[in-house]
Amino acid sequence: MKFCSACGHEVQLQIPDNDDRERHVCGHCKTIHYSNPKVIVGCLPVWEDKVLLCKRAIEPRYGKWTLPAGFMENRETTSQGAARETWEEARAKVSNLSLYYLFDVPAIDQVYLFYLSEVEKGEFGIGPESLECRLFTEAEIPWQELAFPVVVETLKTYFSDRASGTGFPMRVDTVIRHGKRE
Amino acid sequence: MKFCSACGHEVQLQIPDNDDRERHVCGHCKTIHYSNPKVIVGCLPVWEDKVLLCKRAIEPRYGKWTLPAGFMENRETTSQGAARETWEEARAKVSNLSLYYLFDVPAIDQVYLFYLSEVEKGEFGIGPESLECRLFTEAEIPWQELAFPVVVETLKTYFSDRASGTGFPMRVDTVIRHGKRE
Repeated sequence: MKFCSACGHEVQLQIPDNDDRERHVCGHCKTIHYSNPKVIVGCLPVWEDKVLLCKRAIEPRYGKWTLPAGFMENRETTSQGAARETWEEARAKVSNLSLYYLFDVPAIDQVYLFYLSEVEKGEFGIGPESLECRLFTEAEIPWQELAFPVVVETLKTYFSDRASGTGFPMRVDTVIRHGKRE
Repeated sequence: MKFCSACGHEVQLQIPDNDDRERHVCGHCKTIHYSNPKVIVGCLPVWEDKVLLCKRAIEPRYGKWTLPAGFMENRETTSQGAARETWEEARAKVSNLSLYYLFDVPAIDQVYLFYLSEVEKGEFGIGPESLECRLFTEAEIPWQELAFPVVVETLKTYFSDRASGTGFPMRVDTVIRHGKRE
């Protein structure tokens, strides 16, 4: 940020009164501009004994497999956002959403929220940000071709929970290094 | 937003290529400025059979009682943010944080995350954004003087869970109308 989005004048980094960290502050209209973490919402879409993955048609990680997920938008709930992303990337409608995993990724100011969900009728297509979408059994998962650490961890945990037969308790975890920054 | 934070020229609301909603786009440098929901992190701090509340010294809801919570900052995890806010507002150190409640508040583009936590040694003070901080038993909670619906719901659920003796499972809920907008 170089200019004030309220008045167009230059901003400076300074610690405002009654604050304890630097913010971009407008030298003209004095507006304080805050920057905060963003929420990434996504699904782990399941159909029978398979999970739905998308092969990325965009950077970063072009050509790698991922769970459908993206930036949460204004005026939606986290589960609405997760379902929207699953439609946009895999043309799948999902139901029975239940929050399964929260990942803090402080290095890039993001919080990931993955919802466990069911693919309605097992139907899906290919959204514009995907090269291909496919249902994978556990044995078929392309572990070496997954896009992000949060995808690896979510899938590992899901198959482990499924094997244990004791449900899918919600998890909270922190990713120290994220694929995008490696 | 009226001006581009990258170059200082005027922005217009328009739907970018390959997008499906209006964004602020700079007519000069073409930067697309996204606006996304913010995360509010907080604690339900417990000591013995009591919970720690703060009487707000700021608007909105000046003089009403609340759980310590505030905007998540960059470069921190959700639980670090929840602990930081508890220190800032109630001068209490908390431990054993466990995610307890996620509230979607789409009307104001916010996601609340409350962590159940223990007040270390039962010690607390009064932060600059609080008029007073106090430990309340269930019978003492000032239900009519609570600041926000998310605070009412979190406390009700906590006492209900405690009475049932079957643990504190994580909840997800949506607030349709939020105190700040009433």
